[in-house]
Amino acid sequence: MKLADLGKRLLVGRKLRSTQLHETLLPKRVALPVFASDALSSVAYAPDEIFITLSFAGMAAYAFSWKIGIAVGFVMLVVVASYRQNVQAYQSGGGDYEVATVNLGKSAGLTVASALLVDYVLTVAVSISSAAQYVATAIGPLRGHETTIAVVATLLVMTVNLRGIKESGVAFAVPTYLFMFAILGMAAWGFIRYFFGDLPAAETAELQVAPEAQYEQGFTGLLAGFLILRTFASGCAALTGVEAISNGVPAFRKPKGKNAATTLLLLGTIAVAMGLAINVLGNIMGVRMAEDPATQLIRPDGTPVGEEYHQAPVISQLSQGIFDHFPIGFFIVAAVTGLILVLAANTAFNGFPVLGSILARDGYLPRQLHTRGDRLAFSNGIFLLAGFAILLIVAFNAEVTRLIQLYIVGVFVSFTISQTGMIRHWTRLLRTEQDGAKRRHMQRSRIINSVGLATTSTVLIVVLITKFIHGAWIAIAAMVGLFLLMRGIRRHYDRVAAEIAVEEGEEFTLPSRVHSVVLVSKLHRPALRALAFARAARPNVLEAVTVDVEPEETRRLVDEWDRRGVPVPLKVLASPYREISRPILEYVRSIRRGSPRDVVMVYIPEYVVGRWWEQVLHNQSALRLKGRLLFTPNVMVTSVPYQLQSSEIAKRRQERDNGDRRLANRPVAKLRGPRK
Amino acid sequence: MKLADLGKRLLVGRKLRSTQLHETLLPKRVALPVFASDALSSVAYAPDEIFITLSFAGMAAYAFSWKIGIAVGFVMLVVVASYRQNVQAYQSGGGDYEVATVNLGKSAGLTVASALLVDYVLTVAVSISSAAQYVATAIGPLRGHETTIAVVATLLVMTVNLRGIKESGVAFAVPTYLFMFAILGMAAWGFIRYFFGDLPAAETAELQVAPEAQYEQGFTGLLAGFLILRTFASGCAALTGVEAISNGVPAFRKPKGKNAATTLLLLGTIAVAMGLAINVLGNIMGVRMAEDPATQLIRPDGTPVGEEYHQAPVISQLSQGIFDHFPIGFFIVAAVTGLILVLAANTAFNGFPVLGSILARDGYLPRQLHTRGDRLAFSNGIFLLAGFAILLIVAFNAEVTRLIQLYIVGVFVSFTISQTGMIRHWTRLLRTEQDGAKRRHMQRSRIINSVGLATTSTVLIVVLITKFIHGAWIAIAAMVGLFLLMRGIRRHYDRVAAEIAVEEGEEFTLPSRVHSVVLVSKLHRPALRALAFARAARPNVLEAVTVDVEPEETRRLVDEWDRRGVPVPLKVLASPYREISRPILEYVRSIRRGSPRDVVMVYIPEYVVGRWWEQVLHNQSALRLKGRLLFTPNVMVTSVPYQLQSSEIAKRRQERDNGDRRLANRPVAKLRGPRK
Repeated sequence: MKLADLGKRLLVGRKLRSTQLHETLLPKRVALPVFASDALSSVAYAPDEIFITLSFAGMAAYAFSWKIGIAVGFVMLVVVASYRQNVQAYQSGGGDYEVATVNLGKSAGLTVASALLVDYVLTVAVSISSAAQYVATAIGPLRGHETTIAVVATLLVMTVNLRGIKESGVAFAVPTYLFMFAILGMAAWGFIRYFFGDLPAAETAELQVAPEAQYEQGFTGLLAGFLILRTFASGCAALTGVEAISNGVPAFRKPKGKNAATTLLLLGTIAVAMGLAINVLGNIMGVRMAEDPATQLIRPDGTPVGEEYHQAPVISQLSQGIFDHFPIGFFIVAAVTGLILVLAANTAFNGFPVLGSILARDGYLPRQLHTRGDRLAFSNGIFLLAGFAILLIVAFNAEVTRLIQLYIVGVFVSFTISQTGMIRHWTRLLRTEQDGAKRRHMQRSRIINSVGLATTSTVLIVVLITKFIHGAWIAIAAMVGLFLLMRGIRRHYDRVAAEIAVEEGEEFTLPSRVHSVVLVSKLHRPALRALAFARAARPNVLEAVTVDVEPEETRRLVDEWDRRGVPVPLKVLASPYREISRPILEYVRSIRRGSPRDVVMVYIPEYVVGRWWEQVLHNQSALRLKGRLLFTPNVMVTSVPYQLQSSEIAKRRQERDNGDRRLANRPVAKLRGPRK
Repeated sequence: MKLADLGKRLLVGRKLRSTQLHETLLPKRVALPVFASDALSSVAYAPDEIFITLSFAGMAAYAFSWKIGIAVGFVMLVVVASYRQNVQAYQSGGGDYEVATVNLGKSAGLTVASALLVDYVLTVAVSISSAAQYVATAIGPLRGHETTIAVVATLLVMTVNLRGIKESGVAFAVPTYLFMFAILGMAAWGFIRYFFGDLPAAETAELQVAPEAQYEQGFTGLLAGFLILRTFASGCAALTGVEAISNGVPAFRKPKGKNAATTLLLLGTIAVAMGLAINVLGNIMGVRMAEDPATQLIRPDGTPVGEEYHQAPVISQLSQGIFDHFPIGFFIVAAVTGLILVLAANTAFNGFPVLGSILARDGYLPRQLHTRGDRLAFSNGIFLLAGFAILLIVAFNAEVTRLIQLYIVGVFVSFTISQTGMIRHWTRLLRTEQDGAKRRHMQRSRIINSVGLATTSTVLIVVLITKFIHGAWIAIAAMVGLFLLMRGIRRHYDRVAAEIAVEEGEEFTLPSRVHSVVLVSKLHRPALRALAFARAARPNVLEAVTVDVEPEETRRLVDEWDRRGVPVPLKVLASPYREISRPILEYVRSIRRGSPRDVVMVYIPEYVVGRWWEQVLHNQSALRLKGRLLFTPNVMVTSVPYQLQSSEIAKRRQERDNGDRRLANRPVAKLRGPRK
């Protein structure tokens, strides 16, 4: 095994068989960290956004921060309650896409799918950018390199996911639990110190926040209301990721629906507790943050902090104060927070390829996305997701506050459509259900989903109004674009399927004769092999054809042909314009005109080479010719490969990739019937 | 005809037949402008470089400018005399490449070829950058946009050359003659005014040139000598293009050699006359130029001219003074000079593709470069040349003085090697020649070429010493790179040719049987057509094969197969890893193992679509599979195309491209023998 292969094996692991798929199912204790990390990790940036958005109006507005936190927590619990209904009713992993498609039709489903795909990309971009921020806060020399850190981290998560679901689940469980303990422990210790009057203020507490001009008259009226709504909308970033579980139900152990619902409730409770704790502690300790800290944050002496200032996230500021007597605690909190954010990105890497594969199965995306790769993970989808996320990270310089403006809108679009679908679902079931207990249960579920719809649609409107010009339009444009693209792809596949469908009783008449043409340029081994193979097939007519581009060479070929007595007639086509393809095309067409019921078989000798640059040096004319021949009806094109020695390189590479597996088990042989 | 096609027709013109090639031969009066424009146009920048390089030492050094001009003129005449021998001895268009290969061996030939290829690119870059400078001088608002102008001009010349040689010759004759008359007329008028004491000074005559620190002690000793040599080397840019005729001999009318030699003498004389006239007039009128005019040129009040200053080329400065009473003359001179420079680039567009094609014929470059395009011009070479020239123009901001540092070294490498080759040529001929008159003629020629060798090798050494660190190293590195690349390509082709050569008496044994396998995924029309075609070919064994990726779909396929009673057995291959290619590959290999003397023919139904994006949505698995099957010996791969309706789009496009020509004459039909 070469070093490169060893590396690949270490990174990507052994291949998995389809029958091993059940082994990748997750128990609740593993599913929680895998699917909850997205929702939980939001507390790493959602509270920050509340403080930052309020800072436009100066410190007076900070008084609203905990009220907004409670509002966000309320929405979270409503959404969790609603989705507990979803996961029990729809367990196939189609999630909101399935709920919307089944209950509201294809367009609704496709709208949800577009929203979710965009949001998966944003989850990766936001989470990993935030992680980079934590890393840069903890390790001073890395400040200013957030974009690079984020790109590298994205590539790492991508690699891990190419390994497959199960390994990622296990590998990611420990840090998620560590994160919960770290944050809740820090909060508990903070509150204890607060009650004993021992809690120090945050480092930023001494700073003043300069309000923007329009708020200098005070924080009242319409302006204040709008800013509070905008802050609330930013805070709702905490809700992203809740829907992840509904797309991941098939990965749960049985009973899948119930286990997923339990996990959802657990994660909702923990997330709300952590978010509120951070919010309240931030207020108590006097945390100050701003969108543009360099000018907005003012030192006690009246000077702005300047470009040098690095703004630490809320959690880092809290842990620095709470653990002032235990500085290692600060680093532990930063480390596990950075890690959980990377794991949150992992949630998207679990969800995106599954959704992409379902969409590909339904004909909305190219079929390749439905093909499982080596590791049963949907490699193509994983590559796409990582690519787009890196694009966003680079475009927005890994700045969380700017990326978050694009976020949320997609989640709430799918929340809203999904809840509407669920209400329809229950209404439809209630139409036929007779059993009283079941009816009551369904009615209760319908009420829960209705409250969910009311809440999420309200939030969606707030998000649209307050964030549209700040970046949400980009996300919306991407969704509309994806929607149109996927609808177009589906229409294309439908059109093709209709075109190639066989009607009942339809038969293809067999061509009466086969007319074979072997293309020859020189009398070398590839040509002789093609002639031998063509003769072995015993066609009705067999002839060799050459194009007279250089008269000198043609004469040499004809002479050698005669001298060697090749038992196939050679026809020379004139090419006054020195082209190769056209004379052959016209000749083939003339055969077809002469006997329309014949099928023409064109044999092309091809060099098979092992290195990419050798491709440039060979077969170029053959490739062009083949592409054009295929447009002529009743013509087949046969490549007769001649393997040059260098092709061994590529062949060995292929075989090495399969090697160890082929030794371990030979599944193909087992299932193959006896050959005649 | 669609608008786009009309546009193509207008730009690229009608296609030409091989037999029309003789019509593109050039009479001397057309050949002179086509091939001389390069050498003649050098006077648009070579005198400038003399003044600019001398300016390092301040105005004291200007006294040497006309002496250096005379030295350059002398070298020019020696080179012209030498090349008159070349063009008569070697008339195939291989030029220096042929002379070096025949007389000094393949490596020498390849060295010359590398040098020439690099210099063709530089000719385009330098000439067009200089043209852009003239345009910007004449039209104020365009100043600062020289790079854009140059890139656009390169693209225009490229388009003209895709039309073919003859049209360019005729179209370019008029402006070249205009240029000669304009420059010589301006010079004559200038001298007349000078003799009548009426010649005004140049606008820059009032400026002082600040010498660099090292020359402040005066212009003497080693330093001065070195600068004079460097100036001489820059001035030798005037010689570039002389060799163009030797690569263009086949384009002359008969007697080709004599006509080419006459044209060469004519152009040498005119070029020297123009160059010296400009040099002398520049001295008389007190032209001042500098490499960095903003700081080096000092106003009478002692302040530098500053960044705003636009340095006009010598010819523009002269014409402004000489035609001060006739301002339209200034614009005419600028216009024809700009034009001739663009035509000079055209010389490279004539030479580069021919040389590339010769190299491709000899196996040093990919064979595609040997294929003539629609217009008998070597389209691929034209595209390559334009691409590299644009790269240089952009990289050097179209600054002539910086580009010129890379120039010349290549020309003199090929001059020197070519003259060495010519001496060998005459020595070899003299060994066998008996006729006294012919011997004397050859001896005279050998002396001329020896003087040429002595001169050009001296200049080459001077150029290497004085310009290496200023940019010549880039050109040298490019030449070495090209040399290695071309040698590598040749070795590859040689290796392949040896591998596929048929030995005397070697026969390919016919495979005993044909085992056909039709790949099927669904029972649609493409599959039925492939089955019908495969049955028509009556193989010894015929079976259909499907891969069981989705058990559900496989069951449906098997059911329908039975229901419709398809007369071909269907074999289902297990695919525990959900792959498509591997099970098929392993199955094909198992057939081969079972009966090694059989040949296996794999039929793949393929969709033929008309739009590029449809390709992404179809045939992806087929493409991958085909690529991998070709590595297996004794396997043929047959594409059975199914033309979807959209393929009509591409077919119509193909036919439209041929349309008018196919109506005019049907050459293929004429030469085709009667069909059986």
